Amino acid sequence: MDIIYSIKLNKEKEEYLYKQLYNEIKKLILDNMLKAEVKLPPIRKLSQALNVNNVTVVNAYKLLEQNGYVYKKVGSGTFVKGLDIKENKKNLTNNSNIINFADASPTPDLFPVEEFKLVLNDVLDRDKGNAFGYQEIQGYSDLRNSIKNYINKYGINTKKDSIQIVSGAQQGIDIISKTLIDYGDIVFTESPTYTGAIAAFKSRSARIIEVPILNDGIDIKTLENKLLNFRPKFIYVMPNFQNPTGYSYSNYKKEKLLELANKYNTLIIEDDYLSELSFTSKKNTTLKTLDRNDKVIYIKSFSKIFMPGLRLGFAIIPDSLSRDVLSAKHTSDISTSGLIQRAFNLYLKKNKWEKHLIEMEAIYKKRYRTMQECIEKYLPNEIKYSEPKGGLNFWFSLPDGYLSEKLYLLCKDKDILFIPGSNFYVKKKYSKYFRLSIASVSNKNIEKGMKMLSEIIEKFLKDPKNKNLTEDYKTLI
Amino acid sequence: MDIIYSIKLNKEKEEYLYKQLYNEIKKLILDNMLKAEVKLPPIRKLSQALNVNNVTVVNAYKLLEQNGYVYKKVGSGTFVKGLDIKENKKNLTNNSNIINFADASPTPDLFPVEEFKLVLNDVLDRDKGNAFGYQEIQGYSDLRNSIKNYINKYGINTKKDSIQIVSGAQQGIDIISKTLIDYGDIVFTESPTYTGAIAAFKSRSARIIEVPILNDGIDIKTLENKLLNFRPKFIYVMPNFQNPTGYSYSNYKKEKLLELANKYNTLIIEDDYLSELSFTSKKNTTLKTLDRNDKVIYIKSFSKIFMPGLRLGFAIIPDSLSRDVLSAKHTSDISTSGLIQRAFNLYLKKNKWEKHLIEMEAIYKKRYRTMQECIEKYLPNEIKYSEPKGGLNFWFSLPDGYLSEKLYLLCKDKDILFIPGSNFYVKKKYSKYFRLSIASVSNKNIEKGMKMLSEIIEKFLKDPKNKNLTEDYKTLI
Repeated sequence: MDIIYSIKLNKEKEEYLYKQLYNEIKKLILDNMLKAEVKLPPIRKLSQALNVNNVTVVNAYKLLEQNGYVYKKVGSGTFVKGLDIKENKKNLTNNSNIINFADASPTPDLFPVEEFKLVLNDVLDRDKGNAFGYQEIQGYSDLRNSIKNYINKYGINTKKDSIQIVSGAQQGIDIISKTLIDYGDIVFTESPTYTGAIAAFKSRSARIIEVPILNDGIDIKTLENKLLNFRPKFIYVMPNFQNPTGYSYSNYKKEKLLELANKYNTLIIEDDYLSELSFTSKKNTTLKTLDRNDKVIYIKSFSKIFMPGLRLGFAIIPDSLSRDVLSAKHTSDISTSGLIQRAFNLYLKKNKWEKHLIEMEAIYKKRYRTMQECIEKYLPNEIKYSEPKGGLNFWFSLPDGYLSEKLYLLCKDKDILFIPGSNFYVKKKYSKYFRLSIASVSNKNIEKGMKMLSEIIEKFLKDPKNKNLTEDYKTLI
Repeated sequence: MDIIYSIKLNKEKEEYLYKQLYNEIKKLILDNMLKAEVKLPPIRKLSQALNVNNVTVVNAYKLLEQNGYVYKKVGSGTFVKGLDIKENKKNLTNNSNIINFADASPTPDLFPVEEFKLVLNDVLDRDKGNAFGYQEIQGYSDLRNSIKNYINKYGINTKKDSIQIVSGAQQGIDIISKTLIDYGDIVFTESPTYTGAIAAFKSRSARIIEVPILNDGIDIKTLENKLLNFRPKFIYVMPNFQNPTGYSYSNYKKEKLLELANKYNTLIIEDDYLSELSFTSKKNTTLKTLDRNDKVIYIKSFSKIFMPGLRLGFAIIPDSLSRDVLSAKHTSDISTSGLIQRAFNLYLKKNKWEKHLIEMEAIYKKRYRTMQECIEKYLPNEIKYSEPKGGLNFWFSLPDGYLSEKLYLLCKDKDILFIPGSNFYVKKKYSKYFRLSIASVSNKNIEKGMKMLSEIIEKFLKDPKNKNLTEDYKTLI
């Protein structure tokens, strides 16, 4: 709590003291210096420390609560609310000097707008009002057929009726959570893992058990150990170019994971958000391809390498769950936009999608190489990472005793953004890891940004104030 | 359970007996003769009654389970799963002879496709890739501004930042449920009420308490009584042209409801799905207009009288909840399609929306009058209803002792569809009520359908087999 006690209020200023205090605490929360669930100091204690009236603190807390930054638990105090990482991003995107390694989605200049406009108009001319009527809850039938054919090329054999169209992968995760998770149920995730999945599981009051991911896939020994003690509803994994680490499972681990799912009779959710984007000749098999016992629920988004704002993806659902998933989809938003489904279907059928993929691969491959070169050229040797060989994310580690959340604040001041590691864990408040993404940074800015970042890191490592902190460290000052 | 025992299997047929049994039970479920949560008979008992081997029943139940029609509760037996009303609809919409009083959404021929195509293209030319990038979670800023101005004309004063864009009203209900309902929390609804809301509340494991709606609004006495005994998270209401009843609240009841919400410190969700569609000179004030204490969460869809497949709507969120709602929206689907938001914004700004409203009002008003005339001309006097004066739904009541679920089956055989009353209650399996909607039936077909329906009802009322049933009646044969 030390950090709050260090706030300085200016009694000479015209602004009310409670407003000043409100603004200072708000800033600490927005800067992630005060994390979710941290308890604010008791009113009396803080007012003494800051040498102000009790009422000043009471009013500041009240305003924080009104504006949704904190919440009260009866009998136990005032706590910081969870913050959305996107929010920081939003406030910053208007500044064009920013080098944004935080954002993992492509930038609008890469979208095939003209081609998509053509298919949109073709669909409107062809289908007229039907494009806007209520759609099948499961999704537009011909799109499901096109998807079936498309993924067949990637070795996934399924039937049209096993495919459920969703409004993006996040909705896929949310709907499957609705279908499978009851209050207090257990789910397993990789650790670290995708923030949006953690949020969806938490919103269903699931108990999340994290299993470490290594650079060849999930830690199988730990996984089996946990399976001996818990009965999860499912194991949520990203077997190819995992987010945030960029790690991919070895074939051995893929087979082993399926074997364990069978042995312990649990389901697997495979979030295949980017397996197409491999920069080596090695093909990245999906788990679903290897799944012989219908244990894998496969989720795929078209957002990541197409257009994030489309909100379109699909899931492959085992027969035994299909009716329940349908009902969860209906409860969530009735159906996905018919116009978008029909237009994307035409886009697939005209083979525009595969052409687009090839173009994106070329662009990203170049960025990926630039990034590799910059890492070798600039980054201090103390920073460790494992080459991802595909995808858009790089996962770095500071030496033990350093925290990326501190580094984040220094970089933000210089208009360089990345995501500190703690965002990808269920409970960790601080971490030595951090994620850089090349999705929305040009080659020129990768070069510029990595050079600046490396200089900041060098200074950061030299400053003794930053040493010997642990991941349990509760304050940053 | 008698109904299952009355199944006849044909031992001469080539088809396996277990498959025959499976198909017969499936049919009963799809026809709503076996409702959600009804327990199937014990295996031994059914096999004796049908004079077949135990294994035949075991295999039939297994197949029903695999295909998602039933589920097992360990130690207590096999139960019928909840069915989606839409599913029946889907199977039937290919048959063009059907007169569909079940569907409450407009048909594609009424959609302003050409005008919307123009704004879509304008947006693509103007915004290019930005129309497809990730959007603000809260919704496209300029659209929120246009909506603010639009609803101001309806007497609702709010700020742009209180508006949350959602992918249709159903998502609005779902997201607010996520925000407010924890396991076991209590919510109040009108009774009967909208099926999709019941489903969303149930999916959060809420305990739903129903308060009867009368033809001038919710039963205030019962409501206050319940408020004395329970602390609901919110009261979910449709104050204008309620679904399914078509009833509207008197101004007295609107004020009274707000007063009670204040007194007992609870929130109200106002689902304003259709208040614009009034066929009298009387203006239908929304609750939100009268809300002086920020107790009302207002949800509005643009689907009902625009294009259902658009999946676009908005909610007005009290400041204290806005950050939590934002986070629930992010967990649900990140954001609503940017292209659709921008196109609809332009549609609003060009005043095309109000023009469209006027056109729709004229079309529906004509249908409404036709319906009124047909009711007077054809419908037996025993059938009671209250004139809605707006909206698209008519709520009828059979005399006591008759069940609409039986009538439904007779009508379905003659290609006339409506929705039996039990669909709109949390627990009721049978009901004397039923809903007819004029949203997707032409004037010609209203005339034809009401004439046929009236003939069926007359016969139905005369048949002594249909008399003296109660709403607790567990079997229909």
